[in-house]
Amino acid sequence: MIQQKHTYDDYGTDYPYSRKVYITGSRPDIRVPMREIRLTDTKKADGSIEENPAILVYDTSGPMTDPSFTLDLEKGLPRLRENWIEERSDTEVIDARGYQPGDDGQGQDEARIPFRGTGQARRATPGANVSQMHYARQGVITLEMEYIAIRENMGRQEAFKAVYMKSEHDVGLLTQAQTAGMRHPNHQHPGQSWGANIPDHITPEFVRKEVAEGRAIIPANINHPEAEPMIIGRNFLVKINGNIGNSAVSSSIGEEVEKVQWATLWGADTIMDLSTGENIHDTREWNLRNCPVPVGTVPIYQALQKVGDSPEDLTWELFRDTLIEQAEQGVDYFTIHAGVRLRYVPMTAQRVCGIVSRGGSIMAKWCVSHHKESFLYDHFEDICEICKQYDVSLSLGDGMRPGAIADANDEAQLGELETLGELTKIAWKHDVQVMIEGPGHVPMQGIKDNMDWELDSCFEAPFYTLGPLTTDIAPGYDHITSGIGAANIGWYGCAMLCYVTPKEHLGLPDKEDVKAGVITYKIAAHAADLAKGFPGAQMRDNALSKSRFEFRWEDQFNLALDPVTARAYHDATLPTEDAKTAHFCSMCGPKFCSMRISEDVRQYAAAQGLSEEDALEKGMQEKSREFAGQELYT
Amino acid sequence: MIQQKHTYDDYGTDYPYSRKVYITGSRPDIRVPMREIRLTDTKKADGSIEENPAILVYDTSGPMTDPSFTLDLEKGLPRLRENWIEERSDTEVIDARGYQPGDDGQGQDEARIPFRGTGQARRATPGANVSQMHYARQGVITLEMEYIAIRENMGRQEAFKAVYMKSEHDVGLLTQAQTAGMRHPNHQHPGQSWGANIPDHITPEFVRKEVAEGRAIIPANINHPEAEPMIIGRNFLVKINGNIGNSAVSSSIGEEVEKVQWATLWGADTIMDLSTGENIHDTREWNLRNCPVPVGTVPIYQALQKVGDSPEDLTWELFRDTLIEQAEQGVDYFTIHAGVRLRYVPMTAQRVCGIVSRGGSIMAKWCVSHHKESFLYDHFEDICEICKQYDVSLSLGDGMRPGAIADANDEAQLGELETLGELTKIAWKHDVQVMIEGPGHVPMQGIKDNMDWELDSCFEAPFYTLGPLTTDIAPGYDHITSGIGAANIGWYGCAMLCYVTPKEHLGLPDKEDVKAGVITYKIAAHAADLAKGFPGAQMRDNALSKSRFEFRWEDQFNLALDPVTARAYHDATLPTEDAKTAHFCSMCGPKFCSMRISEDVRQYAAAQGLSEEDALEKGMQEKSREFAGQELYT
Repeated sequence: MIQQKHTYDDYGTDYPYSRKVYITGSRPDIRVPMREIRLTDTKKADGSIEENPAILVYDTSGPMTDPSFTLDLEKGLPRLRENWIEERSDTEVIDARGYQPGDDGQGQDEARIPFRGTGQARRATPGANVSQMHYARQGVITLEMEYIAIRENMGRQEAFKAVYMKSEHDVGLLTQAQTAGMRHPNHQHPGQSWGANIPDHITPEFVRKEVAEGRAIIPANINHPEAEPMIIGRNFLVKINGNIGNSAVSSSIGEEVEKVQWATLWGADTIMDLSTGENIHDTREWNLRNCPVPVGTVPIYQALQKVGDSPEDLTWELFRDTLIEQAEQGVDYFTIHAGVRLRYVPMTAQRVCGIVSRGGSIMAKWCVSHHKESFLYDHFEDICEICKQYDVSLSLGDGMRPGAIADANDEAQLGELETLGELTKIAWKHDVQVMIEGPGHVPMQGIKDNMDWELDSCFEAPFYTLGPLTTDIAPGYDHITSGIGAANIGWYGCAMLCYVTPKEHLGLPDKEDVKAGVITYKIAAHAADLAKGFPGAQMRDNALSKSRFEFRWEDQFNLALDPVTARAYHDATLPTEDAKTAHFCSMCGPKFCSMRISEDVRQYAAAQGLSEEDALEKGMQEKSREFAGQELYT
Repeated sequence: MIQQKHTYDDYGTDYPYSRKVYITGSRPDIRVPMREIRLTDTKKADGSIEENPAILVYDTSGPMTDPSFTLDLEKGLPRLRENWIEERSDTEVIDARGYQPGDDGQGQDEARIPFRGTGQARRATPGANVSQMHYARQGVITLEMEYIAIRENMGRQEAFKAVYMKSEHDVGLLTQAQTAGMRHPNHQHPGQSWGANIPDHITPEFVRKEVAEGRAIIPANINHPEAEPMIIGRNFLVKINGNIGNSAVSSSIGEEVEKVQWATLWGADTIMDLSTGENIHDTREWNLRNCPVPVGTVPIYQALQKVGDSPEDLTWELFRDTLIEQAEQGVDYFTIHAGVRLRYVPMTAQRVCGIVSRGGSIMAKWCVSHHKESFLYDHFEDICEICKQYDVSLSLGDGMRPGAIADANDEAQLGELETLGELTKIAWKHDVQVMIEGPGHVPMQGIKDNMDWELDSCFEAPFYTLGPLTTDIAPGYDHITSGIGAANIGWYGCAMLCYVTPKEHLGLPDKEDVKAGVITYKIAAHAADLAKGFPGAQMRDNALSKSRFEFRWEDQFNLALDPVTARAYHDATLPTEDAKTAHFCSMCGPKFCSMRISEDVRQYAAAQGLSEEDALEKGMQEKSREFAGQELYT
């Protein structure tokens, strides 16, 4: 089947032998994309051929990987949800606020690189609330919710039948198998979900209920119809966020848009544009128009730029105007550090690393300069009023998050978390969607506490953490120090993991760093899905391991999170095409392969009367008793 | 202080500003090496200077990094323990078995590259038992045990006084502070050790007791006196192993010795020589003579080579002879797959990945070919007889370890673990030191079970695991998939973590892969030490974070596990010398640094009457109440 490898090339050399497929929902414009990885056949020892069904995987790469689509950065992506939003008849098209002098910072107006837009934006009609939470609470299942249900199921009902059942058995068998703890490739280990409530099959109604009750959010600004609907909540697949954004030292618009597409190609579920450098307004516009996943920002960064980088000059009016500017552009979630209250600021004075959140430090500076309560806290209801007109979700920032192991779980952090719970209730009063940001740097034994405090203080609103980093001593490897923490907190119930790249603490990540961060966090999120027992999560592991055992090298590469690197590492010692079908690798060499030996063992066992069906029906234990030798020492 | 950076260069460019120091024990030849990282001073806001005491870290690099030592590979390292062993007067020098035709495999005798040795080896006098466990059980505290006690304490009693107390306070204050959960840089978070018993201060007597009771081992073959004593046990620092070794496809002796030194430079606590290619005898000899840490092997690999790679031709006599060959060379621990019993073999027939342990698959093949119980199992007492004559520790191999998530925790694996417990008791009857090898591929929710089963089945003998990998879907990144599992199992009580490199499943690791594997596992082991609450483990984190907050960039790099990479990443965007003292990095740029802002906040808080002493004495809570604003929403 190798000869066919270039026929399946929607994803180019990044994901060879993959193609884009769509599962259509209740109407033709609900087309949920997935990446189908085609596998080669197994040649069995008896000469027969076993077909290996293709594997479907969650796909965040957007239309760029659809061969029928031609990317034009100046036009942006198709406006997938535009009709859905129009059909709801609760919005109106208005003249957009657009760019106004000073938006990029003082003296920056001349350097603009504007995106060619319509000059218009969409907003809720007066008095309307267009948040997905509002619809959910009215009992409405939106098209976004149906889309998400299909997406989260990843076509696994069909896949189970194809890969596992090979018969008409009901897919409910999976759960039986899980319960029995059986070990056939068909099966998955029972999870430990720490109280999460993950159904066998995700229905649109389940999505609605989770959103209505605040346990999940659908970040979906009506001005970002390009984004493919997705959900963040602990009863769904664990998501990851990739940060991009220029700084005053480095990076251009072109580079940033390229990073957005690169990050979503490798699996970023959302993107945060954390730009603090030149062209902050236009960079965001280009990013949004070309981004197939929700985009978050920290609006205080731009607000600060507008006042010449002097936190004390910030005002509510200027901040409010910045929120409207960004909401009209289509930002899907705002990080708002409204939990940084004046009273918490002095609690950080004795920390090893003080306040490391940029937004947190800005607000702390404002609070102490004016010796007043934060305007974000004071005007929180006003912020909610803006959010519900555009369906901007709130990501309540952890301005007091620890930036060192020493500072983890201290009074400042926990005090702020209590305040975030208070603010969650207020947002929910407005049917505004909320998630809660979390640390940071936390030693492993403190991670579960963080998750439990969050669930408790914030009423199960989704948790969204940065790492956490489990040690401070490895700058240059903080994707790993934090990947460990991320896998753990994802397992414990964290809904979205904000990636950390190898350049954390050291510099601005480049393209390779972005990829390293995304892949590391895909590992963490998937390890968490497996540990929670998310139905079907183990299918890809099983398929990859089966291909490994059968020396189907190409399939092993193609099923990997990063086929390019897997192939390159293999080829570093065995570059020839022959080696791709060889029954060994360079780790052990041709004479010494345990995989090959154990195939011999399998044949021997079969010859002893252990046919596959036999083993499955009678159970292994009984059979192995027949083989039991004499006990020597018992 | 930057100008002094080249005065402290014992470790060259790999660890700038570090030097080798020794802590001397009860006699002058007990000199325990540590790496001292010198730090620059802090320039405080008021213009005063605060000295930052140097940090001592565990050092596995051996004499190569001592400037008074000149490395000569042909001579090998100094024979540190030779006198200690002689003084015990329970050994004799014998003519070594040495190389015998066929040792490297059939037809390989001509290609030798012999190390110039004495032709002699050391062995216990008839009837004597020279294992550290034997001495421990006689109540003898060996010089090795004293050395280890000093090494595990890492000079932290002194360091605490210097870094933290700045006074004559008793070091016992640390424990008080831990209990109080205070957050000053002086302190460390309380650990969750899952039943481990880690004392505040490790005494030689504690080392003896742990070895006597089998909870820890000191791999220390009397024929490898070059190795610096170290201990593996869950009440000590978590250790890591690095695998090296050529295969039939790749690598030469020179490369392998270079990898040994490279791996120990970056922190490998033991090395396993897993060679299966040419010059297997000589490669091991060169490695041992130049290796400052204990060396383990899997003797069945060489035995198989001697019989032309046909497992069925293996015999006990040939294997026994191989053990003696390697024991006389100085191998410190043998992986023996004596738990692979005939009855377990058919249990693997339905696995996704069958048997992935090379040793396991060889023995399985032998068992099924002869339809007989394994000769390793049948002759286990004979193996113990050999081990106690040289003090070779046993690492009981997990030949049935799962090679895929699907195969984790199955009957074959758990059956073998029970047998390993049985064998542990037999080894202990002979006062032979034992550790237990573990998986492999295990989803996160199954890791603690593995640890608990091991402690229970094997009577708290130290656990030594490969990873475990927490998902199968990321070939090319298996240092990370497994680093997550390793950190977790280290936390739960695993004593040594066998590294996995990025090339796992794909090819033979090169030098950069070895380094990536070692650094990733140093992260996992340290994260585990922090989580267990190992006394003093947090000192390095605290020092690094303090340097980060104070923009002492050079100190931040030098305190990192890998200063070279940290510096290179920083310099990728800000290469000038100025940037090393700048109060910003390229992540945020000069105008927008949260660290700088929070220094302003700190000064503000201080101006409000929150002096450091004040804060520490009266507690933060009271003070922050003074700052509390009005509650708006409660």
